Amino acid sequence: MPATFNSVDPRTGAPGAEFAEATGADVAAAVEAAEHAFGDPALRDRDRRAALLRGAAARLRAVGDDVVEVAGAETGLPEGRLRGELERTAGQLEAFAAVLDAGDYVEAIIDLPDPDATPIPRPDVRRMLVPIGPVAVFGASNFPLAFSTAGGDTASALAAGCPVAVKGHPSHPGTGELVARQLEAAAAEAGLPKGTFAHLLAAGIEVGEALVDAPGIAAVGFTGSTAGGRAIVDRAARRPVPIPVYAEMGSVNPIVVTDAALAARADAVAQGLVASVANFGGQLCTKPGVVFVPAGAQGDAFAQAVATRLDGTEPTVLLNERLRDALTAAVARLADRPEVEPLGAAPAFAGDGFRHQPAAYQAPASTVAEGGALLEEHFGPVVVLLRYGDRDDLIDALGRIEGQLTASIHAEPDRDGELLRLLTERLAARAGRVVYDGFPTGVAVTHGMHHGGPYPATSAPAHTSVGMTAIRRFLRPVAWQNAPAAVLPPELRDENPLGIWRRVDGELTRDPVPA
Amino acid sequence: MPATFNSVDPRTGAPGAEFAEATGADVAAAVEAAEHAFGDPALRDRDRRAALLRGAAARLRAVGDDVVEVAGAETGLPEGRLRGELERTAGQLEAFAAVLDAGDYVEAIIDLPDPDATPIPRPDVRRMLVPIGPVAVFGASNFPLAFSTAGGDTASALAAGCPVAVKGHPSHPGTGELVARQLEAAAAEAGLPKGTFAHLLAAGIEVGEALVDAPGIAAVGFTGSTAGGRAIVDRAARRPVPIPVYAEMGSVNPIVVTDAALAARADAVAQGLVASVANFGGQLCTKPGVVFVPAGAQGDAFAQAVATRLDGTEPTVLLNERLRDALTAAVARLADRPEVEPLGAAPAFAGDGFRHQPAAYQAPASTVAEGGALLEEHFGPVVVLLRYGDRDDLIDALGRIEGQLTASIHAEPDRDGELLRLLTERLAARAGRVVYDGFPTGVAVTHGMHHGGPYPATSAPAHTSVGMTAIRRFLRPVAWQNAPAAVLPPELRDENPLGIWRRVDGELTRDPVPA
Repeated sequence: MPATFNSVDPRTGAPGAEFAEATGADVAAAVEAAEHAFGDPALRDRDRRAALLRGAAARLRAVGDDVVEVAGAETGLPEGRLRGELERTAGQLEAFAAVLDAGDYVEAIIDLPDPDATPIPRPDVRRMLVPIGPVAVFGASNFPLAFSTAGGDTASALAAGCPVAVKGHPSHPGTGELVARQLEAAAAEAGLPKGTFAHLLAAGIEVGEALVDAPGIAAVGFTGSTAGGRAIVDRAARRPVPIPVYAEMGSVNPIVVTDAALAARADAVAQGLVASVANFGGQLCTKPGVVFVPAGAQGDAFAQAVATRLDGTEPTVLLNERLRDALTAAVARLADRPEVEPLGAAPAFAGDGFRHQPAAYQAPASTVAEGGALLEEHFGPVVVLLRYGDRDDLIDALGRIEGQLTASIHAEPDRDGELLRLLTERLAARAGRVVYDGFPTGVAVTHGMHHGGPYPATSAPAHTSVGMTAIRRFLRPVAWQNAPAAVLPPELRDENPLGIWRRVDGELTRDPVPA
Repeated sequence: MPATFNSVDPRTGAPGAEFAEATGADVAAAVEAAEHAFGDPALRDRDRRAALLRGAAARLRAVGDDVVEVAGAETGLPEGRLRGELERTAGQLEAFAAVLDAGDYVEAIIDLPDPDATPIPRPDVRRMLVPIGPVAVFGASNFPLAFSTAGGDTASALAAGCPVAVKGHPSHPGTGELVARQLEAAAAEAGLPKGTFAHLLAAGIEVGEALVDAPGIAAVGFTGSTAGGRAIVDRAARRPVPIPVYAEMGSVNPIVVTDAALAARADAVAQGLVASVANFGGQLCTKPGVVFVPAGAQGDAFAQAVATRLDGTEPTVLLNERLRDALTAAVARLADRPEVEPLGAAPAFAGDGFRHQPAAYQAPASTVAEGGALLEEHFGPVVVLLRYGDRDDLIDALGRIEGQLTASIHAEPDRDGELLRLLTERLAARAGRVVYDGFPTGVAVTHGMHHGGPYPATSAPAHTSVGMTAIRRFLRPVAWQNAPAAVLPPELRDENPLGIWRRVDGELTRDPVPA
């Protein structure tokens, strides 16, 4: 008898459907099938991979009503959000198909031979990126679609040509299974081997550990907590053959608000901030956790406006009991600190399900310590306003912030010119994305989006998990030296049959190599 | 009194000049200065960095006679090789300066806003690569110039805008000091801060450990043994803030020779192989350590020809006593194995200095085990011929080979068509570079050269330590969302003042963003 676990409706706490826990044998079979698929020429066919991605998108849309219903009951997220996330997920799959159509993601480089080069003659060298191998993906709890079974890690790894084994998140197992069936069907329809995609469900940690340890796995994608991500990073580093782990982890996504911005539009900033903190239970990787607000009357009024708006927000459903308990405990620790002051009523929620009242706290920015409690991520609808005195006070505190996914600035370019440049410099040094006059939640999936940042925001600051360059994580270069044309991939042949952009003797061009 | 150590002339074993061992305080001062330099706007100026690289190249050429003399006495490498390596080193510095001139290494991407995008409006997103922070570089013993103080790691990190602290190799301390003085002078002449470059000499491991541990260090470049590289990788992974280590480590660089190639040109292959194995003491990262040779009379004759040529080669000077002792012990273990047979006389060298007689051994390819003794790297002029029966025997054995920097194929495309395609596929899956009808030593520095590969060839299979894309190791992306033009780096401004290639709404272009 395999072990089982049940989904839970966080709106009520009631158990839902039962799911079988994947076994060690399931992991071994999935990895073996993935290795087999990786060796199959079908997976090297860009058109088939594009067909898989587009087919999966179409299938997800076709079962959208079911997905939204199941995901709603497993996550407590509202229908509008889930419909948007489904469209985002489908659009992301299609965007990677378009990357395959364009084809230049392989970064083809051709250096023609030069027998007169010094100190040694130069051979013909042609280089492009090839898939790294089977990839293990850990789905996130907070985006049951866009960062889970068919999310960005899966989409970019499949686009790259890597088979994917997903460790489905136990907080939305039914959603994961439903999505996995669409991916499996789309893979079959695209003529891709069975091992192209696998979905392994488990409530315990053993399945994930076995995936990270499997010699056949070449890279890992993860979205989740810093503790969980670091455990996987450390485990992968201890393998006989270490592998890259692309873990997107914790972030408090600091926001700086200047006096000039408050004078110009305090209400709009407060309104936007409250939405960014409280929407979807504040359970977003980019939720602003700390906001630097000026000391003084204008800042006081702003802080009070934020608190009043949060107090007026309904207690929001959190994703699961564990996250709710962790948040409750962390907020209690925060509120107990002598330098911290609650800004609103923030009553504890006592009814059905796993809910938390959105709330704001404040503390002097001067009490911020590097890696300290004030900069701890609170995964839920909670924000800490850090009140700063003068510019030096602000800049000093920013210097104690660790690596972040995002940092945002509300300023008035005309009045804050020099300060804005200074803030840009200091925040770009710590964050992967700097947002102006806006909020970091709602990460657009575009070519240039960067969803990454220095540790602990991620384990791999050179890479992103959102946007088209996410594909680069699952690729490695290979160079062919003096190769006969017949063995070269089409991307590197003289005639450029795919018409892709290539760097030929240092210059970007779509032209064939001259005969 | 600081500790000291002496250089040693490996041609005689005689001690040379005395050098002071860097202290923990030296490391701390170097890292602090590097952090300071990283915050200095001067280092963000591409033109100054290009001037540093070109200035260092010119200065290295100007002191070339001195460098060659000192390096010759410290490494035993012949003058012609050192002059070539000096030119390669200078050319590499200049090639990275040209990368800065072209400017598109920052991979600029601009996504224009789209208020009608679904599921959420698309903001203005502009992304480019920025330097990752101060870099620690571990110089290699075997390339006192091209992979050491001013070698590829240093050149690419400085080009990226990262200050560099080099742990100089104790096997060529005088060379390192001489080269370091040129870099320091070139940095000052380019108007760059003092912390841009530091050279720390040490014979012990403490200085290297302190560098890897220093919180101010953001990445590490290393070239050396698998054991040394893995120790640094593991150490960096244990930091509170783990950092990327780009370690280029061990490789046996397999070569496959087909029957058809032997029939067509056995002599030429034997001659090229012997040079590739024995030149410069066989102490090259890409030295072929194993060669798959057909069983049978033709293969026997080839094997004998290789052995005879190696026996006729003078005992070559090795870089230092430690490497000589390690090689002697490893070859003794190899020769003791029951499946291994010596092919020539291979007498032990008994005279002055640290020398080894070039030698070949052979064993059946069927006895090759994954990670086994036959695939151990022998850092010196030693090669193992692995004799294969039929094609399946060959393919089976290739399946047991670990990650490699290179793999080479000597075949006849007309006669070996299908086999050549199969070998290409199998070897490209394991190696960073596949060489046809040639030898892997002599790595050309070009845009597309890839000097990397799956573990244990490197710790970071997605990256290269040679070629222009080596700069990517020391960069990380930052995205600016809805940023006022005044705070954007020039690379991302509408008007494209630098005229670089950028991806605008998915299309590569050098045009300004339309108003």
